[in-house]
Amino acid sequence: MEIREINIKTNIREQIVDITHEVEELIKESKVINGYCIISIPHTTAGITINENADPAVKRDILNILDNLIPLYGDYEHIEGNSAAHVKAILTGFSQIILIENKTLKLGTWQGVYFCEYDGPRDRKVYVKIISD
Amino acid sequence: MEIREINIKTNIREQIVDITHEVEELIKESKVINGYCIISIPHTTAGITINENADPAVKRDILNILDNLIPLYGDYEHIEGNSAAHVKAILTGFSQIILIENKTLKLGTWQGVYFCEYDGPRDRKVYVKIISD
Amino acid sequence: MEIREINIKTNIREQIVDITHEVEELIKESKVINGYCIISIPHTTAGITINENADPAVKRDILNILDNLIPLYGDYEHIEGNSAAHVKAILTGFSQIILIENKTLKLGTWQGVYFCEYDGPRDRKVYVKIISD
Repeated sequence: MEIREINIKTNIREQIVDITHEVEELIKESKVINGYCIISIPHTTAGITINENADPAVKRDILNILDNLIPLYGDYEHIEGNSAAHVKAILTGFSQIILIENKTLKLGTWQGVYFCEYDGPRDRKVYVKIISD
Repeated sequence: MEIREINIKTNIREQIVDITHEVEELIKESKVINGYCIISIPHTTAGITINENADPAVKRDILNILDNLIPLYGDYEHIEGNSAAHVKAILTGFSQIILIENKTLKLGTWQGVYFCEYDGPRDRKVYVKIISD
Repeated sequence: MEIREINIKTNIREQIVDITHEVEELIKESKVINGYCIISIPHTTAGITINENADPAVKRDILNILDNLIPLYGDYEHIEGNSAAHVKAILTGFSQIILIENKTLKLGTWQGVYFCEYDGPRDRKVYVKIISD
């Protein structure tokens, strides 16, 4: 099936955006019953991950913990000044593969799909490819 | 092929469980010769990775190094008190994709598939989907 | 399609090697138009990731930031002395899945595919499996 796109506009430097609903909509449109989907991004200072969708404090803790580990300002060579964002993106990952069962993402009760902006605000996009059994 | 499940019961807060054998058994049952398998988990405070299956000290070092990086107690907002586990899980990853060749996982000599518990003890599960060429 | 191999000889302890061109060549040879490829490695002290292909300072910053986070020498039990490399590899990841569209990798303008050596110099290999729609 052809690759679909989700467009995201981030508003601040670091932001976690829940895109679970958008991915579920694409699966519904695709009419795929069982299979899996590949979610990837064409960026180097943002990531895709999965995490808790219930308490919004989790998102803030994630960004704060990563910021403590890899500070924005450091002894970095890259002149654009976003080396910390590059490393956070590597640690988060640039794609996720999620199983599809009975027309929905096979996620746990508390799992959501997160786009992680580490060098915003920017216009970003997410690719979704849905593969049927 | 339909999704299979591996059930895991962890005994302590942090624990690495080698599930290579269980995954290999599912591949044997599937009769798939060449292809790949997707291993994923429905949790937000546990991860799936690959690492050395020889010296058990490696597992302890992994857990200790991660614990030094992201301490259990910190200035976290999430009231459940497991924010460190959420971040460790993100850094580890929630799925692995492993090639299958000649009826076995195409792993290196020293590679094993690890389930990483960061917020146990709990009953956990692992999904395995095997895709044939 | 059968699994292909890319051989890499690293020269120093830590090194990031851009393998984008090698992967693109395999895709060209495969004649696949649309689909995706799975890139994986059989090692436990090296990783596969995606990152900026423009400024070489980014590679140095990545290695330096990871080295500050997880020092080579520490209170580690594993007698081989490469526990830091095992953890860096886990954080980086052992595989990448990349979409293929119109005979090329669907990467962003600034994205390259990186093999990350954390315990060299060594002879390493990368597996590439290309899956057609």
